[in-house]
Amino acid sequence: MSTEDENGSSVLRRTAEYQPPVSWRTWLIGRPLPTADAPHQTIGKFVGLAVFASDALSSTAYATQEILFILAFAGTVAFGYAFPISVAIVGLLLIVTLSYEQVIHAYPNGGGAYVVARDNLGELPALVAGAALLTDYILTVAVSVSAGVAQITSAYPDLFPYRVAVSVGLVLLVMVVNLRGVRESGAAFAIPSYFFLGMMFLTVGTGLYRQLTGSLGAVANPPPLETTVVQAITPFLILRAFSSGTAALTGVEAISNGITAFREPRSRNAGITLLWMGGILGTLFLCITFLAVAIGVVPSEAETAISQLARTVFQGQGLLYLGVIVATTLILIMATNTSFAGFPRLSALLAEDAFLPRQLAFRGSRLVYSRGIMALAGIASLLIILFGASVTALIPLYAIGVFLSFTLAQAGMARRWRNSGRLSTSEELDSKGEPLRYDPRWRLKMIANGFGAACTGVVMLVFAITKFADGAWIVLLLMPALVAAFLYIQRHYRSLAAALSLEDYGAMPPVARHRVIMPVSGVHRGTLAALRYARDLSDDVTAVHVSMDPDEAKRLQRKWEQWGDGVRLVILDSPYRLLLEPLVDYIGEIADQRQPNETITIVVPQFVSRRWWNGWLHTQAAIMLRLALLFKPGVVITDVPYQVE
Amino acid sequence: MSTEDENGSSVLRRTAEYQPPVSWRTWLIGRPLPTADAPHQTIGKFVGLAVFASDALSSTAYATQEILFILAFAGTVAFGYAFPISVAIVGLLLIVTLSYEQVIHAYPNGGGAYVVARDNLGELPALVAGAALLTDYILTVAVSVSAGVAQITSAYPDLFPYRVAVSVGLVLLVMVVNLRGVRESGAAFAIPSYFFLGMMFLTVGTGLYRQLTGSLGAVANPPPLETTVVQAITPFLILRAFSSGTAALTGVEAISNGITAFREPRSRNAGITLLWMGGILGTLFLCITFLAVAIGVVPSEAETAISQLARTVFQGQGLLYLGVIVATTLILIMATNTSFAGFPRLSALLAEDAFLPRQLAFRGSRLVYSRGIMALAGIASLLIILFGASVTALIPLYAIGVFLSFTLAQAGMARRWRNSGRLSTSEELDSKGEPLRYDPRWRLKMIANGFGAACTGVVMLVFAITKFADGAWIVLLLMPALVAAFLYIQRHYRSLAAALSLEDYGAMPPVARHRVIMPVSGVHRGTLAALRYARDLSDDVTAVHVSMDPDEAKRLQRKWEQWGDGVRLVILDSPYRLLLEPLVDYIGEIADQRQPNETITIVVPQFVSRRWWNGWLHTQAAIMLRLALLFKPGVVITDVPYQVE
Repeated sequence: MSTEDENGSSVLRRTAEYQPPVSWRTWLIGRPLPTADAPHQTIGKFVGLAVFASDALSSTAYATQEILFILAFAGTVAFGYAFPISVAIVGLLLIVTLSYEQVIHAYPNGGGAYVVARDNLGELPALVAGAALLTDYILTVAVSVSAGVAQITSAYPDLFPYRVAVSVGLVLLVMVVNLRGVRESGAAFAIPSYFFLGMMFLTVGTGLYRQLTGSLGAVANPPPLETTVVQAITPFLILRAFSSGTAALTGVEAISNGITAFREPRSRNAGITLLWMGGILGTLFLCITFLAVAIGVVPSEAETAISQLARTVFQGQGLLYLGVIVATTLILIMATNTSFAGFPRLSALLAEDAFLPRQLAFRGSRLVYSRGIMALAGIASLLIILFGASVTALIPLYAIGVFLSFTLAQAGMARRWRNSGRLSTSEELDSKGEPLRYDPRWRLKMIANGFGAACTGVVMLVFAITKFADGAWIVLLLMPALVAAFLYIQRHYRSLAAALSLEDYGAMPPVARHRVIMPVSGVHRGTLAALRYARDLSDDVTAVHVSMDPDEAKRLQRKWEQWGDGVRLVILDSPYRLLLEPLVDYIGEIADQRQPNETITIVVPQFVSRRWWNGWLHTQAAIMLRLALLFKPGVVITDVPYQVE
Repeated sequence: MSTEDENGSSVLRRTAEYQPPVSWRTWLIGRPLPTADAPHQTIGKFVGLAVFASDALSSTAYATQEILFILAFAGTVAFGYAFPISVAIVGLLLIVTLSYEQVIHAYPNGGGAYVVARDNLGELPALVAGAALLTDYILTVAVSVSAGVAQITSAYPDLFPYRVAVSVGLVLLVMVVNLRGVRESGAAFAIPSYFFLGMMFLTVGTGLYRQLTGSLGAVANPPPLETTVVQAITPFLILRAFSSGTAALTGVEAISNGITAFREPRSRNAGITLLWMGGILGTLFLCITFLAVAIGVVPSEAETAISQLARTVFQGQGLLYLGVIVATTLILIMATNTSFAGFPRLSALLAEDAFLPRQLAFRGSRLVYSRGIMALAGIASLLIILFGASVTALIPLYAIGVFLSFTLAQAGMARRWRNSGRLSTSEELDSKGEPLRYDPRWRLKMIANGFGAACTGVVMLVFAITKFADGAWIVLLLMPALVAAFLYIQRHYRSLAAALSLEDYGAMPPVARHRVIMPVSGVHRGTLAALRYARDLSDDVTAVHVSMDPDEAKRLQRKWEQWGDGVRLVILDSPYRLLLEPLVDYIGEIADQRQPNETITIVVPQFVSRRWWNGWLHTQAAIMLRLALLFKPGVVITDVPYQVE
């Protein structure tokens, strides 16, 4: 023990004393890291693409198929619309990517839509953006893992009945990896990420070459078309298909939320990573849709579009086919990881602003926000179980949150450019301390972001309307509920801070009278230990016995006369065999008559057994008494433990 | 408040003061009954037959069918063995009934196999009997409710997919009825009981008449035979079928366990009820088996034998058919009630002997053993869920416990007659205070009971061997495990009593030194309220702050210098951001150095919010600290609550 830093009256300080012991947790998530290690946990562009882009890139694995699923309502003849729809989606992707590139440079400390909206639009839009992002992160985990498991069951149909269990198992696996910390998970995930890109470009390249040379042909033995009722091709159907396809854009904002994870120069590294990601994503998505339509892929829960494409391109289920399936599964699992990076960061931000329980802002033993990681895994697993791990069932819930946050982020940026245009050429700080700099091209940038906000806003509305009945209504109810919860939590913390504040606090007079009440169920060593403690607290001790059996009470009374040291005993007869209620009633009467300077302590004798399961063998009256008396002002409850065994 | 009965030094007594308030519990299970009401809650022969015989009588609803299920392995040609097997089972029933009639007169205070074995054979056989009976009660609930729901799904096949949910719902319904108390449940169940007897004798009578007049014919559209692989008719198969049929005997012992529920003269009333029950049961079982074979009933999960019999006898699914189904369902649900009467009584007996948690011996607000009733409902529901509410799947677990308890009860009675034969003609009391009387016919009675013990013992062995692979092994493992648990619990209570005993207890010296340690996370009104309390306890107060952030610690230190009233502050630096561990470590060091007369109190400031769900918004450090320090001798933990809102 080192007692140092004795400054002033009587403060002792002990530093770096406590070394956590090695336990099962060490084995699972690694040895604890001291706080001083925090700033070193950053990543470069190469690993950054693997960690933050996997979400966006992996959506190519299901976006095409979800477009076809909707078009199939009008029969296979409608599949011709898939490519034009994909082109429109890539156009939207271009707008969103360029907009977020600007966000990254304006907000080098990260935070994405929530921070941008908070600084430029105000509290309520920021909370809406926060709710949207949290929902989005949760759904990303549910959708990506379900889609990953769908790849596995495409190759091994025998596993189809176990898809929910396999999905939940994978969520827990990613959770553990993330509890270890971001650098290690980044390294673990870099290889499969680039393996996926390699396999996909190989598939798409081979496919395009064979299509040009006319040797590609169609899918052999495609799964049967699951929809049989054929509708007309209406604009509404096209818009629904478009909405499903916008799932391809999910995850684009991930980098802007995680800039602080990048190595310096942060903004530059993050921005370049974002542009690379947008380019790769757009190219892959267009090529996959083109080839899927060309070979006549049929959308199906039993076999994914990627599986059908790969076995057609590589002429059978050989090694290359298996490579594509493995790579796609892995990148989809990694996509989850993006959420596992983003969700805890955002909830910590919200917790620091008092909108979520403050525990979410505490770093765990590995310097990550452990509680946020575990919360995400729990909620996502629940969603997977509720929706039976079906991507098609989850998709209608998915993209609303994404586009809502896009819209708010870009509207916030547009507002910011307008504010910067009002400045002189000198630099200023905005309300939150971020640099706000005059930009000669502010008008152009304002228009660009404003246009982006309008586009994504319209897409969000289209999505909400066309998918309303399929499940979007759940999200439209959830979002305001979340915002209400944020505001409730903030109000709670504020009123608590006010109640605990020391302003206008006059020193309280010392305790004038200290009454001690001691419930006794029998006279034994535990009771006498408690009695000894009670007499040390005060001379005013009353023992209370609740009697359900007059003979028992007589015996107790005789024993008390021998051992009770002259302390007064009150016997409460309880003809209805209730234990707690008469006691609480009695204590309540005394508490209600107490003087302001009077303190009442309830001393409860309690024997404790070293084996916790023996607790089942005893009535846990002390715990119930504590709960019942928690709100009586001036009443303190003390258990005096008596260790047996 | 009436303070009366002031006898001796300073004992106050308050009588009949506390009136429990009306709540949702009142609505569900009725108003609380005072202890003084206890002896009035007894029943006569008529209601007694309804309450205690429903278990035995209801087994006629499935015993025949379970015999046929096994014989079906050898094809329908083997069904001819069903009637001879039933005759053998009725012979066994006669032996068992006569034996229990003797038990009832020897043990007017009830208790059945457990008490008989305890008094005459010793502790271990008694515990085995207790384990067997408890298992039997649980299985009776599971089997009877499953069989009852099978009647419903025979008439309404659409309900078949919901059979598990319906079964669990019914178990909970019977639980609530029993929580109200035995007299009311007896009255509620008397009408359906006699309705069942009426309907069954009508069915059997009509069937026999039509069979004699040659107009009965065969079952129309019987369900398909579910077994297709045909075995030979071996003695093993016949014995397996016999074992399944012995399910008809379950419940015969119920009356001997519940004699105290009968009106005086208890033994006479209970004995007559038992004989009536045996006669009715044997007659019904034989008639049903005879008719089932005659009309070619096919055993099936989809339609019960009773349903096939009723629609053949009454020529279609008319009103009389429906009456039989309703009556059979009701009696099967009532059979559950027998267990709900027996299980709590027996577990209270075992709890009084310290073999089960003592809470099971406490009577609830309606004078019934509420905890036993709820435990039974919980475990039986679990079994129903695990076995998918299938009677055929549950049957192999069922009768071992029953026959084990039969064997032990009769062996105990045989031993008792031998002991009584050694007496002179004068009456004596046995070890437990029951009258042991010389009986001139003791040799005859000893031989009768010994023969019964041998028969039921052999049947138990046959059952265990022929049903071992089907599920009997579960019970054969469970039984020793239960006995081991009984012994473990008794040892725990004994060592506890020894540890708490006041024998050789020298009065402890008063507390010489009282140290107070107060963890502080911040300086606010809650902290100061706790500090005020701590200073009232002792002059030796140390405040301890676990610091994860040096700046935060500096701020706290400055605030403490202003508000801390000169009390010493220790700051523990925690570089691994652990809160509890350094604190427990620090307190542990001090506790280990403490003198015998020294007490250490940990005063924890804790703000409590009236809305319990706000607890999620705070770290519950006080609870964790309490758990971590529970086993440090000489350390008392006190939460000083500070109410906000």
